[in-house]
Amino acid sequence: MSDRRSIRLFTEHDLDLGLSFALSEAQAHYAIHVMRLRAGDALRIFNGRHGEWSAQLEVVTKKSCQLRLTAQSRPQPVEPDVWLAFAPLKRVRIDLVAEKATELGASVLWPVFTQHTNAERINLDRLRATVMEAAEQCDRLTLPDVREPRALADVMTQWPHDRRLFVLDETGGGQPIAAALSKVASQPCGFLVGPEGGFAQSELDRLAQLPFVTRIGLGPRILRAETAALAALVTWQSLVGDWR
Amino acid sequence: MSDRRSIRLFTEHDLDLGLSFALSEAQAHYAIHVMRLRAGDALRIFNGRHGEWSAQLEVVTKKSCQLRLTAQSRPQPVEPDVWLAFAPLKRVRIDLVAEKATELGASVLWPVFTQHTNAERINLDRLRATVMEAAEQCDRLTLPDVREPRALADVMTQWPHDRRLFVLDETGGGQPIAAALSKVASQPCGFLVGPEGGFAQSELDRLAQLPFVTRIGLGPRILRAETAALAALVTWQSLVGDWR
Repeated sequence: MSDRRSIRLFTEHDLDLGLSFALSEAQAHYAIHVMRLRAGDALRIFNGRHGEWSAQLEVVTKKSCQLRLTAQSRPQPVEPDVWLAFAPLKRVRIDLVAEKATELGASVLWPVFTQHTNAERINLDRLRATVMEAAEQCDRLTLPDVREPRALADVMTQWPHDRRLFVLDETGGGQPIAAALSKVASQPCGFLVGPEGGFAQSELDRLAQLPFVTRIGLGPRILRAETAALAALVTWQSLVGDWR
Repeated sequence: MSDRRSIRLFTEHDLDLGLSFALSEAQAHYAIHVMRLRAGDALRIFNGRHGEWSAQLEVVTKKSCQLRLTAQSRPQPVEPDVWLAFAPLKRVRIDLVAEKATELGASVLWPVFTQHTNAERINLDRLRATVMEAAEQCDRLTLPDVREPRALADVMTQWPHDRRLFVLDETGGGQPIAAALSKVASQPCGFLVGPEGGFAQSELDRLAQLPFVTRIGLGPRILRAETAALAALVTWQSLVGDWR
């Protein structure tokens, strides 16, 4: 098994040479029964702080396994800093946003309740599990920070004023995204995507008054909310982030 | 019901002022039983050739409905010309590619069998239905041309030599996508995305020898095939297409 193909797991443990610890029950099940790993097999471990480590399974029982860290395979990198605030969507589509935003390198995922938001509650545990799995699979060395859902007004109060917020304005009033991004370059930034029903006009009016907000547009077709969220992150990575 | 919110349907019929015709059985079911339209209600119709038309339902029975075109609401536009060739994926993910590529304005969708392609057969009727529904919902005035699946070698033989083909090379050997696209500007182009298992090295070697091929990369994380396909279209629309 090439190192690139070996399974990758996220852990909360500190990571250092020679350290040994047990996998969580769910991860042990995955390693033993899904991936059919055995004592002596290699895997990779990361925790978002200490880079990526090669590890070897040492003890494998039916329900648990112990591993030992054998070498650091990658140091902890500085990763792109782009936030995504989004109105929660129905189950399949919110999973999609979480999975794809993780692949696309979002550093913060922040569910935001707006006036026309359709999903009344949001399963944060499920969202965090989706994010963890996506990070494990895409070779990322951090997890995005999945924040507690908040009302739009609260998010705007808490939003750091030195972080440019690009609001995806589906009414057509925004600047083309590439033009808007070219003006901010390396400034910290984030995107806000409304629900399927769009922002209320009063919400757009209030957003437009915030000094850190720029409204942007994504062309003439009506994109679904999850498409718009991913398109914003993609364009940012292409033009400003680590795809350059 | 505002015009923007009225239902939009694709038809093969010619469209012109005063013309009257019956909806297909499936569309009649959708209009009558899902959207609960009645005689006198308005809807919008497009065929990919004659723009978008406002129409009024005239006769509604339990199983069929007749409509009359009352005015052209939009002329037929020139739409972006970008192709997507992709290795078929398992069911949910191929549906996602078809839906999102339609929203993102791809003009051709071409399933391509490669050495490591996992999906053995592909339901073209289902793919075309997905594409039609996505076009109806995203306000697009055409459908992408969904081509018959072909082996990679055949697609390369048939590929027009004046259409630049950007191959998404997950081995890291490609140019950053934004840099590559900035060099071609308005030249006709397309993207080729491999299967989850990646291209075989022999496939990449053969592709690299074609004069119309440029290999491109999408950053340091490993994107799923469907994410890569959508990311390519997004970047093209942002930098070269109709999002500018």
